[in-house]
Amino acid sequence: MRILITNDDGITANGIQALIDAMMTIGDVVVVAPDRQQSAVGHALTVSSPLRATPYHRRGVHLGYAINGTPADCVKLAVSTLLTERPDIVVSGINHGNNSSVNAIYSGTVSAATEGTLMGIPSMAISVASFDEDFDMTLAQKIAIHVAKQLLTVGVPAGTLLNVNIPAVAESEHKGIKITRQGSSVWEDYYEIRRDPHGKDYYWLTGNFVTLEELPDADDIAVKDGYTAITPLHYELTNQGIMETLKSNAGLTTF
Amino acid sequence: MRILITNDDGITANGIQALIDAMMTIGDVVVVAPDRQQSAVGHALTVSSPLRATPYHRRGVHLGYAINGTPADCVKLAVSTLLTERPDIVVSGINHGNNSSVNAIYSGTVSAATEGTLMGIPSMAISVASFDEDFDMTLAQKIAIHVAKQLLTVGVPAGTLLNVNIPAVAESEHKGIKITRQGSSVWEDYYEIRRDPHGKDYYWLTGNFVTLEELPDADDIAVKDGYTAITPLHYELTNQGIMETLKSNAGLTTF
Repeated sequence: MRILITNDDGITANGIQALIDAMMTIGDVVVVAPDRQQSAVGHALTVSSPLRATPYHRRGVHLGYAINGTPADCVKLAVSTLLTERPDIVVSGINHGNNSSVNAIYSGTVSAATEGTLMGIPSMAISVASFDEDFDMTLAQKIAIHVAKQLLTVGVPAGTLLNVNIPAVAESEHKGIKITRQGSSVWEDYYEIRRDPHGKDYYWLTGNFVTLEELPDADDIAVKDGYTAITPLHYELTNQGIMETLKSNAGLTTF
Repeated sequence: MRILITNDDGITANGIQALIDAMMTIGDVVVVAPDRQQSAVGHALTVSSPLRATPYHRRGVHLGYAINGTPADCVKLAVSTLLTERPDIVVSGINHGNNSSVNAIYSGTVSAATEGTLMGIPSMAISVASFDEDFDMTLAQKIAIHVAKQLLTVGVPAGTLLNVNIPAVAESEHKGIKITRQGSSVWEDYYEIRRDPHGKDYYWLTGNFVTLEELPDADDIAVKDGYTAITPLHYELTNQGIMETLKSNAGLTTF
């Protein structure tokens, strides 16, 4: 199995390094990942400037490339141009921080997996619910191996990726794996207003991740309860339920 | 009506300037937009560096702020911090380029409207299917006014935004407005490999927007046929249809 690995925390992050070690036990690994931190970049693509690919070696072995771009750039450039063989799966992570609920739309980790599915390759994003850079990735590695092995056999349809979120618990406290849907948690955020040495204001984003509603089967709740949540995501964004209502409203279409 | 205007082409672009003129005829306008081109930034948020807000004047009138950030940053910073009064609607655009089909996930224009809905404000994205910076925005201005007036009355539910895409036709050839769903068009893209003056390779994204399938009610097809397409989008990404299949597959959840 040829496995393309990427992430959004940058190629040197603890999480992707743990993922490389894990994936090497089940397949041939190629790493094409951002050369620096790219969190919260959403599904960004670099179009107005060129990309560079710097060969990436680890312990003396050439494993792939570091890219001056986003996670989605990495997958697109790797599959279309850099790799000589098409990967069988794309695995993005292991992200430092929960990508359940609304985080899926901000997450570079998830966007890399989305780009993989857009290119027709079974893809998964994997994250742990801890921002601790030294978080013990042993459980996350085992889950990454388990889900990656299953990804080609469980019947995930084209255009759908698996968004895997792991609770920040010791292995002995891990309750198991649940199939979930995107939860209702959002960021209640605000900007700290600070003043620079030259007397000018600047604004820095901060906030708290809060659960609006305890939805059944929701990924945020599962993670909070100590389960690993696997949410099948797609990029069909239409609110189909409202289409008929809008069609029947002559005001909108009468022009 | 208080109208917050933003875009992803930057505050000086022809499209947002036309939108400001149009919205001023129906309400009180505040502009908080990126200080430079931010296309294809997806739903990016700036978290690891501070934002600056530079007062923006047009024809001697203070209209808002230019921000060194993304479209989503602009909406979040405006609503949470910069504005003294909460806007009634968010209007993002007028984008130079079609944001139908898969473009919705790459588009900064759409992400700004998504951020508006996340903050509980009725929001719309509006784009014309032309990359010509001098494209005649007269028809687009009329459609912007029409849809913005309707936005508060047509019953768009919380969490859903309207993604409006206008064909690149003269007003006399415009066929009307259709309620649509996200189409199947994708980018068949590739990277041009070039060599810099120092002998090193760099990669530049380019590609063609191609229709995979002529889906009924699809936004890409409507625009191609000369109609303005209005697609209701939400940020619920779960592929609900596949959840039961995955749940019934013991392989994935047995760990």
